[in-house]
Amino acid sequence: MDYFSGYISNLIEQLSSLPGIGTKTAQRLAFYIVSQPEDKARHLAESILEARKNVRYCKECCTLTDAEKCPICSNPRRDKHTIMVVETPRDLAAYEKTGKYEGVYHVLHGAISPMLGIGPDDIRLKELMTRLAGDVNEVIIATNSSLEGETTAMYISKLIKPTGIKVTRIASGVPVGGDLENIDEVTLLRALEGRTQL
Amino acid sequence: MDYFSGYISNLIEQLSSLPGIGTKTAQRLAFYIVSQPEDKARHLAESILEARKNVRYCKECCTLTDAEKCPICSNPRRDKHTIMVVETPRDLAAYEKTGKYEGVYHVLHGAISPMLGIGPDDIRLKELMTRLAGDVNEVIIATNSSLEGETTAMYISKLIKPTGIKVTRIASGVPVGGDLENIDEVTLLRALEGRTQL
Repeated sequence: MDYFSGYISNLIEQLSSLPGIGTKTAQRLAFYIVSQPEDKARHLAESILEARKNVRYCKECCTLTDAEKCPICSNPRRDKHTIMVVETPRDLAAYEKTGKYEGVYHVLHGAISPMLGIGPDDIRLKELMTRLAGDVNEVIIATNSSLEGETTAMYISKLIKPTGIKVTRIASGVPVGGDLENIDEVTLLRALEGRTQL
Repeated sequence: MDYFSGYISNLIEQLSSLPGIGTKTAQRLAFYIVSQPEDKARHLAESILEARKNVRYCKECCTLTDAEKCPICSNPRRDKHTIMVVETPRDLAAYEKTGKYEGVYHVLHGAISPMLGIGPDDIRLKELMTRLAGDVNEVIIATNSSLEGETTAMYISKLIKPTGIKVTRIASGVPVGGDLENIDEVTLLRALEGRTQL
C-alpha cells in the first residue's frame, strides 16, 4: 500500500490487525479517522490508551474492568448467592442486556478445548472454586452451546457437584422466532429432550 | 453499558462511532484491544494520532497523503498525461491494486448529489480543471456506477469537452465471473449496449 503515505498505510496496517477487520474495512476506517476533526481522532486514541492502561480483572468475577471490583460485583442489589458462569465479558454483556438476571457472574476467559490445547488450568476455574467456598446457592453454567462450551459445562458441573451446590445449565433449544424448518437436527433434538410441561 | 467500567465503556462508545462498526463489533474490538500487550495498544493509538496529524491533500491529485505530493504524483514513471478521476482515495486504491494503470489520478472526494445537496463546488472539480491547463491527453472518468457517480461523470465530461481533451468513461457491464442470471436488468442492458467486436 505504498500508494498512500507512510502514516496512513501504517494506520491501515494497525487497524487490519484487529480481529474481524480486513484490509478494506481498515482502509475505510483509516480514511474516516483522518478526515475527522483532529480532536475526534485524539479522543479515540486517548480512549484506547486509557482503557488499556486502566484495565484489570475484577477480583470477584474476573471480568475486565477498571476498579478492584466491577460495577456488578460492587452493586449491593445483586444477588451474590447466584453465580452465572460465562466464557467472555461479551457473554456477560449479552445477559446484562436482558435486564432480568439479578445474580452475579464469573468470567472464565475461554473454554476448555483439547484441540486448541486449552485445559482447565488455562481458564479462570480456580477462581470460581475459591468463590464457592463462600455462601453460594446456585451456579448457572452459561458457556456457549459449542463443543468447547459443552465440554467446559460438563467439567465444571462434575467439579462442583461434590460440594452440594446446585448446578444448572441454560436451556438449549429453538431460538424464539426461529423457523423450525431452518433449524439443524441437533438443536431440534435438544429442544425435544428439553421439553417442558405446559 | 455501565456493567463494564468507565474506560472500557468509553472505548466501546468511541469505536462504535466509526462507520460500519456496531455496538457488538465495538465490544469485540475493545475487549481485544485491552487484552493485548500495552505496547500494541500504544502503537494503535499513536498510529491514529500520527496519521491524523500528518494528513494532507496531495497538491496535484487531492488524494490524502502526508507529503506535498502523494507517492503516485511524485513517481517519475507515472504517465502525467492521463488522469483517472475517482470519487475517493479508496477507489484509487482499488485501481492501484490492479497494478496495470500507469497514469495518475484525481480524487474528487465525493460525487455530485442534488439529493444530499452536494453540488459541483463541493467536490474537487476546480482543482481538476486547473490541472487540465497543463499537458493532458486523456481524462478517464472512473466515478462509481451509481446515480451520483453517473451524474458526476456526465457533468465532468460536459465541462471538459470544450477543451478538446479526450474524455472516456470506464466500461459498465457484467462483472468477470458474474453469473448472467443473477445480474440486474440495467447492468445487462449496459453490457449489451457496450458490446465490442471480437
